[in-house]
Formats: sequence, structure tokens, C-alpha cells
Amino acid sequence: MSTMRIGVFDSGVGGLSVLRHLIAQLPTVEFVYLGDTARVPYGNKSAATIAHYAAQSASFLREKGVEMIVVACNTVSAAALDVVEAVAQVPVVGMIEPAARAAIELSQTKRIGVIGTRATIESRAYSLALYAHGGTTAMAVVEHACPLLVALAEEGWVAHPATYAIIEEYLRPLLEVEIDTLILGCTHFPLLADAIEHVAPVTLIDPGYWAARQVQRMVGVLSPSGRGHVLVPPVEYYVTDIPSNFAAVARQFLGFDIGQPHLVALDSIVPSS
Amino acid sequence: MSTMRIGVFDSGVGGLSVLRHLIAQLPTVEFVYLGDTARVPYGNKSAATIAHYAAQSASFLREKGVEMIVVACNTVSAAALDVVEAVAQVPVVGMIEPAARAAIELSQTKRIGVIGTRATIESRAYSLALYAHGGTTAMAVVEHACPLLVALAEEGWVAHPATYAIIEEYLRPLLEVEIDTLILGCTHFPLLADAIEHVAPVTLIDPGYWAARQVQRMVGVLSPSGRGHVLVPPVEYYVTDIPSNFAAVARQFLGFDIGQPHLVALDSIVPSS
Repeated sequence: MSTMRIGVFDSGVGGLSVLRHLIAQLPTVEFVYLGDTARVPYGNKSAATIAHYAAQSASFLREKGVEMIVVACNTVSAAALDVVEAVAQVPVVGMIEPAARAAIELSQTKRIGVIGTRATIESRAYSLALYAHGGTTAMAVVEHACPLLVALAEEGWVAHPATYAIIEEYLRPLLEVEIDTLILGCTHFPLLADAIEHVAPVTLIDPGYWAARQVQRMVGVLSPSGRGHVLVPPVEYYVTDIPSNFAAVARQFLGFDIGQPHLVALDSIVPSS
Repeated sequence: MSTMRIGVFDSGVGGLSVLRHLIAQLPTVEFVYLGDTARVPYGNKSAATIAHYAAQSASFLREKGVEMIVVACNTVSAAALDVVEAVAQVPVVGMIEPAARAAIELSQTKRIGVIGTRATIESRAYSLALYAHGGTTAMAVVEHACPLLVALAEEGWVAHPATYAIIEEYLRPLLEVEIDTLILGCTHFPLLADAIEHVAPVTLIDPGYWAARQVQRMVGVLSPSGRGHVLVPPVEYYVTDIPSNFAAVARQFLGFDIGQPHLVALDSIVPSS
């Protein structure tokens, strides 16, 4: 049996926090990671622009011969999963569904908070998924856009007093309704998990972890010992730009160095479905 | 005499803080504003990508028949002014030179601070301009990248305790060398001028104001009364994306509503010089 190849894409480096879970949970799989670092961030862009960019990324990965695509970006998962599915022609896993299912399963009180980028929150994708999977359960869902947390995570200010003050301000409306579970609906937010947990001692849902679990179920790779002591996971990295702080930020998200990624252009790709 | 047309471009809405000064100081001029809102921000991107995007914007404005181009983006002014000049074929005014000259003129102690995006600071464009114009004057220039301030300005958190804490952290190394003048080397920073002045009671240099003064000198439009009571300044607005919070953010920068801008695509422009 040849090695399976899974494509993973994100608006930038944030998706590396998802790739980290995929590598850990899928020891026999090869990955192709694409970060659209030239056009990052997507979180404040319109749904139409996000869909256009996502289609180009899916098209790029399809050309790389991947057998599955993980949309490691909450904003794309929320705004354009259907577009990606139309272009991909292989199974697609987004961030929303796995996280929503996990939140419903783990929440005791069914009072669930969601934080994300402006685009993710305005799409109401998490609310819709939570209510769809919650069935007849009585639930309260509070969503809140937290764009500053993206910048704080990239700046590495994960324990600065200002970070705590900003998290407190953002989470106040969620804590007022006494949520017991909080979905970290942006790939950058797991980097701030300690600070978030300090301000809001509730169950945190990292969509990347739960998406990787879903991929594992779909792929059927169940042996956690397969990779053993391989130090450099089999990943090809592609980016659309290499900013000066790229290596440092990538390391922060992934926990290890990725070396020099391949530089590619997506602008001129005309996706066909 | 027909009305003069000046092109103004920025990575997004930030350049509207520059346009505001241009409108105020050039009452008989028509403006064409281009904001590359689909690819904003440029501040964490590589110099090569910034140059490519800037050439496309200059090319677009040239097609609109402008007689002068104002690069209302510090990052582009720092990284790619020569590229814009090669493409523009009309006079080009950037942010760096006018601000550097003003800082040298207004500083008593010649201890000058510069804050901006990562790309602007890493280019050292402001240091080089300050030392070039300072001649034999003994100077101390301290530059510091402040990426979080961009997000704070766009979020409208101009007087939040967290904003003060972040500004204090960023400005500490500048205040330690006792600067008496600070260049706000990013179009977003004038929105935080009150908070910055509170933390650092020094002379603040808004490059947009000084660039508009330079344009005024070049154009020779000296009558400040020309526009009188025109309520809607003659500006054509073009953007590459219209995010959901666009109108609110634009108003914050400009002080008045711009209505619905024209949506244009830059991706496929191949600039010729």
C-alpha cells in the first residue's frame, strides 16, 4: 500500500497548529501544507474574496495529487467549505463540524461560547453547526469576534498583561451567560490557550485536534506507534510569501522548524470544479 | 485650467488618514484613491511581494490618468518607492522623506524615535532618510516595529487600558534614550495619537500631514479657501475587497462616509515601466 497524501491549507501559518495535530494522530500519512502567506489574513475579508482564494488553494492541492483536503482555517471552513468541496474532487474536512460535535459532547450545561475572526463569527457557521448537531437539546450559544487575538498570537505576546486585559474584555459577554465550554474558532487561538483558560476556566475546544480525530476515523490509520522516532515529519511546505519573521512564527505554531518552504504563486490560478 | 488629478494608494484603508490631509491642504485637486483591501496588510510581507503589489497599484492609477501619485503607505514607501517611480511615469511622493525632514526640523535634541510595521522598520528607510537629511548633526535614531497597534486602531480600541499597556511596552526602548520626537510611521498610528502622546509626551510627526504639505508645494495650490463648503470632496474610491466592517473603519480614518467604493481586481495586472 502506497503512502497516503493529505493536503492541508490555511490563509497563512495558523494552520500549522492544525498540522501539528494531524502529524501526531496520523503517523503513516504524508502531508502537503499550503499557507497563503501573501494574502493573509482572511479574517477581515469578504466572503466572496475568501471563497475565491480558497478555490485557488484547493485547486493547487489537487494538482499536487492529494487524496483528501483539510481546510485548516476556520474562516475558510465557515465561509467557503462548499466552494472547496466543489473544486477539490476528494473528501474535504473543515474545522467547524468536528469542533461543534466535540463541544456538544463535552459541555455539561450546553452553554457554549465561540470566538474567532470577524468573518468566521459573522458567518454564524459555528452557531448553525451547534444547533444542527444539538438536536432538541436546549442550548445557549454566544459568538464573539476577537481579531486582536490573532495579532497577539503572531507577536508572541501569550502572557503579557495587555493580552489578559484584551481577553477579559472579549470574553466578558460570554462569561456573563456562564458558558462552560469555549470553541477556539481560529487557528491562532490555541497559542493563547493558557491565558484564555486563566481568564475563563472552562473546557476549551481546539478544532484542529478534533478535525485530526475525524480525519483519523475517515482514513482508518489507528496505529499511534507507526511513526516512531522519525524526527522530521514527511511534510512538503508551500507558501505564497516568506515574511522576515516567518521561521519564528512557524516554529511557534508547530513546535519545530520547517526549514525553507517552497514559494508558489496562486494569483493566476483559475479554479475549475 | 482643468482640474488636477492625484492618485493615492495604500494597502488598505489606512491611507485614508493621508487622504484626509491631502483633501484639507489641496482644495482644488481631484483624487483617485486605491486601497488594496483584498491583500492588506502589507506590513508583515516580504519586500519582493510588497514591490509586486505596489507596481500593480501604480499601474492601475496610471491608467486612471493621474498626474501625480502619493504612496500613502509607509510600508510601500519604505520598501518599494523606486519600483513605484519606475512604473508611475508621473511624480511620486512617499511618506518617508517629508516625515524625516519634519522630524529633523522640529526635534530640539535630535533624539528621534520611529514606529511602524515590521517591514517598514526592517527596511531602515526612516533611519537612512534621517541620517541623510541630518547632515553633520549629531543624532540618535531608535526604530521599533509595533504590529499590534495596527490591529488596535482597526478595532477602534483607541483608549482601552490594554492599548496603553501595549504602547508602553513598545515605546519603552524609545523613551529610555529620551527621544523628543516620534515619527508615526504607519497610517494607522495617527488614530492612536492621543494614547501615544499620553504615554510619550513628545512631538508626534504624522507623515501624512507632511507629505500633503510637500504635494502642496509641488502642485502650487496655495489657496486654502478654494473648496469652501463642498461637503463631498471630489474623490473616486477603488478597493480590491469590501469587508463587512469597511464603512465603519473608513469613517474612523477619514472622518466622513465615502459611500460605496468601486470594486476592482489588481491580481492580473502586469505592470510595465
